Amino acid sequence: MMNEAHPLQRWKLTLAYDGEPFAGWQSQPCGNAVQDHVENALRLVTKSPVRLPVHASGRTDAGVHAEGQVAHFDASSKLTLSGSHWVRAMNANLHPRIRVMACEAATNTFHARFSAKRKTYGYRFYFGETLPPHYYKRAWQLHRALQISDIQKALGTIVGEHDFKNFAVNRGKNASAPLSTRRTIFDSRYQQVSEFEGLLTITGDGFLYKMVRMLVGTLVDLERGRLTKVEFDRLLNAERLLKRSACAPAEGLYLLRVAYGSSRNETHL
Amino acid sequence: MMNEAHPLQRWKLTLAYDGEPFAGWQSQPCGNAVQDHVENALRLVTKSPVRLPVHASGRTDAGVHAEGQVAHFDASSKLTLSGSHWVRAMNANLHPRIRVMACEAATNTFHARFSAKRKTYGYRFYFGETLPPHYYKRAWQLHRALQISDIQKALGTIVGEHDFKNFAVNRGKNASAPLSTRRTIFDSRYQQVSEFEGLLTITGDGFLYKMVRMLVGTLVDLERGRLTKVEFDRLLNAERLLKRSACAPAEGLYLLRVAYGSSRNETHL
Repeated sequence: MMNEAHPLQRWKLTLAYDGEPFAGWQSQPCGNAVQDHVENALRLVTKSPVRLPVHASGRTDAGVHAEGQVAHFDASSKLTLSGSHWVRAMNANLHPRIRVMACEAATNTFHARFSAKRKTYGYRFYFGETLPPHYYKRAWQLHRALQISDIQKALGTIVGEHDFKNFAVNRGKNASAPLSTRRTIFDSRYQQVSEFEGLLTITGDGFLYKMVRMLVGTLVDLERGRLTKVEFDRLLNAERLLKRSACAPAEGLYLLRVAYGSSRNETHL
Repeated sequence: MMNEAHPLQRWKLTLAYDGEPFAGWQSQPCGNAVQDHVENALRLVTKSPVRLPVHASGRTDAGVHAEGQVAHFDASSKLTLSGSHWVRAMNANLHPRIRVMACEAATNTFHARFSAKRKTYGYRFYFGETLPPHYYKRAWQLHRALQISDIQKALGTIVGEHDFKNFAVNRGKNASAPLSTRRTIFDSRYQQVSEFEGLLTITGDGFLYKMVRMLVGTLVDLERGRLTKVEFDRLLNAERLLKRSACAPAEGLYLLRVAYGSSRNETHL
C-alpha cells in the first residue's frame, strides 16, 4: 500500500510509441496494451506492490502511433526523483517501442484527459504500388497521390464548430445519456511531403471515437469520386445519423501533441 | 527440375528490406535470412520444386537495412511474366518487411555482384538522450550531435584509392590467398538532417567486410577525441594491420544503391 504519511506528487508524462506491437492504449487482459507496459514500468521503478493507474489524454486504438501522448500518475512524494530521473528509470524498464520523452511535476489539479485544451493528430499516406518496408504499418498505402486542392477545400469546411456525429463510432452501445457530438476544429491542413508521402494534420478541442480516421476515410472517398462535396457537407451538418462510414486504417494515424492551458501554473508546478 | 527445352532468362531485382527481423542477407539454416525469404517467394511464384539461387550484389549483415539491394536470378523463359508482374507476384509471397521494388530482364552476362560498378551506403545517427520508437533499430543513438567540420575533414581524406585493411574484418580465417584490400571511394559526405538526425553517405567501387561500419566507428572515435587525426591517417595508409577496431552498430547502416555500367546493354535487355 502507498505510505499514507507522505502526500502524493502528480507527474505528467509525455510518451511516444509505435502502435504496431501493442493492443492500443487501454489496459487489456493480455497485458500488452501501452497502459499495461507503462504501469508495469512504474511498478518496477517505484517498487510498489500495487498498480499505480496511469491516465492518458485519451485512448489510442491498436495500431495507432503516438509522438506526444500525455498521461499522468501519482507517486509518493517520498520518491525524490527529478523529472529526468523518472525518464531514465521508466525507459530502463519499458519496451523499446514505448519511450517516455519527458516527465514533469504537475499540480494535483492537472488531469491528462480533463485538462487537455487541444489535440493534434497526423495522418500519413504512402503513394505507390509497392510499400517500402520502412512504411509498413506506419502509413496508409494508396496507389496514386491525392489531389491536394480537393483535400484542402474539404478540410477548409471542417474548421470551426460542427456536429461530428456522422464521423464517430459509438464506443459503448449502452451509453446512458447522449453526450454532445459537437467539437471545434482549430486547424486542419494537408501537404504532400514528397512524391510518395502525404501528411494530413488536424487540431481540435477534442475528437470523438474514431473521428480522425472517419474524416480521413471520407476525405479519401471524396477525392476518389466515391462521394460528392454536397454529400460530404451533408454528413458534416446533418441533424441525424446518416448511414455512412469510411474508416481509414489505424496504422496511418499519429497522436502528435496534446496542449494544456497556457498559464504555467495550470499544468506544471 | 528446370525444363531444359526452354532457355533461361536472367532477371535483375531491386530489393528493399528492414534489417531488424532477419538474419542478414546470406541464407541460414534457420531459414530467416533475406535470401531464404526471396528464394522461397521465387519457388512459390515459379512453382519450381528446386531452389533457384538468388545472387545479391553483396551480403548485408544481420540488422543492416537495404533501400536498393540488387540481386539476380534465372528463370525458365517459359514463364512469360513481365517485370511488373514479377514485382507483384514476388511481393504477394514475401514477408512485408522485404519488398521487390523493381524487376527488369537482364542479359545473361549481367551479374549482381561482379557487374557492380559502385555502391552507396548510408549511415544514420540519432542524437539525444531518448531514442523515439520509430528510430529503434534504425539508427545509431549518440547522446550529442557530431561536429560536422571534424567529420567532413576526415571524410575528405578517405576519398580516392586507399588500402583499407585496417577498416575491415577478415570474413574467413582460412582465406587461401590475401585478396587486395585497396578500394576507391568516389564520394563521401556527412550532413545533419535535423536537430536529432545525422546522415553519412559513402560511394565506392566496393567495400571490404564491415568496412563502412569500421569507418563510421573510427570517425565517431575521432570526433569524440578518442583518436587523433594523425592516428586516423595512419590507419588509412598503414602498410600493416594495426590493432584497432571500432565498429559502428549494424542498425544504422543502409545499402542505398548499387550502380552498374552506364551503357544500357551491359545491364539490361
